[in-house]
Amino acid sequence: METKDTTFQGRIGVIGAGALGCFYGARLARAGCDVHFLMRRDYGVVKEKGLKIVSFEGDFEIRPPVFPSAEAMGRCDLLIVGLKTTDNDALRELLAPTAGPETLVLTMQNGLGNEETIAAALEANGQPGMANAAERILGAPAFLCSHRGEPGVAHHTDHGWIQLAEHRGGATDRTRGIAALFTAAAIRCEVLDSLVEARWRKLVWNVPFNGLGVAAGHADTDSVLGDATLEATARGLMEETIAAARADGVTIEKAYVGRMMEHTSTMGAYKSSMQIDYENGRPLEVEPILGEPVRRAKAAGIAVPRMEMLYGIVRRADRLNRG
Amino acid sequence: METKDTTFQGRIGVIGAGALGCFYGARLARAGCDVHFLMRRDYGVVKEKGLKIVSFEGDFEIRPPVFPSAEAMGRCDLLIVGLKTTDNDALRELLAPTAGPETLVLTMQNGLGNEETIAAALEANGQPGMANAAERILGAPAFLCSHRGEPGVAHHTDHGWIQLAEHRGGATDRTRGIAALFTAAAIRCEVLDSLVEARWRKLVWNVPFNGLGVAAGHADTDSVLGDATLEATARGLMEETIAAARADGVTIEKAYVGRMMEHTSTMGAYKSSMQIDYENGRPLEVEPILGEPVRRAKAAGIAVPRMEMLYGIVRRADRLNRG
Repeated sequence: METKDTTFQGRIGVIGAGALGCFYGARLARAGCDVHFLMRRDYGVVKEKGLKIVSFEGDFEIRPPVFPSAEAMGRCDLLIVGLKTTDNDALRELLAPTAGPETLVLTMQNGLGNEETIAAALEANGQPGMANAAERILGAPAFLCSHRGEPGVAHHTDHGWIQLAEHRGGATDRTRGIAALFTAAAIRCEVLDSLVEARWRKLVWNVPFNGLGVAAGHADTDSVLGDATLEATARGLMEETIAAARADGVTIEKAYVGRMMEHTSTMGAYKSSMQIDYENGRPLEVEPILGEPVRRAKAAGIAVPRMEMLYGIVRRADRLNRG
Repeated sequence: METKDTTFQGRIGVIGAGALGCFYGARLARAGCDVHFLMRRDYGVVKEKGLKIVSFEGDFEIRPPVFPSAEAMGRCDLLIVGLKTTDNDALRELLAPTAGPETLVLTMQNGLGNEETIAAALEANGQPGMANAAERILGAPAFLCSHRGEPGVAHHTDHGWIQLAEHRGGATDRTRGIAALFTAAAIRCEVLDSLVEARWRKLVWNVPFNGLGVAAGHADTDSVLGDATLEATARGLMEETIAAARADGVTIEKAYVGRMMEHTSTMGAYKSSMQIDYENGRPLEVEPILGEPVRRAKAAGIAVPRMEMLYGIVRRADRLNRG
């Protein structure tokens, strides 16, 4: 039996080239993909000296095409969105010159609602043929530990595997064709039939540990697990997330809570991305991780008392933190 | 018809002479009661210069008997406990020399569980006749705005009325006899038949606004009411408090939530005592205001998800705040 090679071919653009965008984009480029980077802070350095990835899997450098504006980068066949969700307001402006009627958009952002925001941004751009944008969006929840270093350097400190799914419908040859890119770049890529299920499963962990990491006074995972009241609250938040997921059409087995808590206990004193952002005075990804889940639950008439309270506390903490 | 005068007569001792203890003790002394003060920080100043109350109802000074230790103060007929609940560990030592088998103890402290702590402290003192201490305890939830000033000065900035009830059983001549003292001191005193009901009703406000005042980033009442998510959380906390009260034998009508929220909206940007303590780095009264209500709810099998989460967050905030 012969297998048809459906590996994606075309011009790839990375929008939102923080540590995550730089890491995955650079790995794809190193594997031979035609990857273009849109950069602001690091544009000059990368143009002159290239992009360096300092990784526990091996350091490497690339000299990619880099652009200071979406207009300069121009139309791509596949856009990888690594933008922090707190900058989603910029999507419309960033996608207008880079996305055409055939462009696929793969968001590697966190939480719920980003696909819908991207679809709306694409459809608002006014070009012919941009309707049904939701059909051309994919999502890739990423399990990556990374952070930016000096300009032109991104650090990859742990993990790195991704999940990949269509925003609408199950996996197709197109999905597998994009997965093949990542696999060729030595990124473990799990192709799934339901993006929204993957999003909700990730939220089962992210809601309690990102939220309490901020709300409970900079509480890392050990601080939550080591306090019986906070530990019970974390479990309760997981159960509420599963109930909200069910109302959103996603069934997650109850035993997932126990498995996630067990897994968390092996992580050491782990700080969530939201906690790290908070400690560094950066904007928090409150809406996709807490706000949108609460809104979906409430729209479905599901009580999520802890999650709503956490959302209120973290949203206020975020505002005060940006002061 | 002749009314028997049951006004309490005897030696009164104030234990825990913070702003609250100083204010009520001084008002009783001014009205002619035989009030003795146990003081630490202010002992020397008050002994030499007296105690000054700076009050919106009129400043005044008294020169009361003051003692640097419970042993020096000795046995009293009525002890008024104004001790901050975070110092309840000292009760046993403070009550041993000051309370005998006939001594009444009136606690003006906040929240749930102080009467039980006092009863245990009395019964632990080992003197003959100290059993059934619970029968000699009264409670007086106080609605007072006050704070300490320089040594020897307490400030009374608003309100001041109290409720008064027996810890065990309904109001008796004894209760009314103590109420008469406060009335004579121009303190409005409402005699009630259920102390635990008064405690729970006060908690309906204290749980959300003391708790969120700390947990939601120094949120005063206007900050809570002005944020739809936090406002919904405050209402939910009130409903949980009412459900917990019911399990503890106290019926509070559902409409109480609306009345409390309405009342709160007239308070301006009010900071709860717990928020003020937090801002000043002082220990928080976490256990009587959050911990004991959560424990009673859980013991009765009542779900209080928001209250439990608030307890976990505030308890941790308190520990970190004390550094």
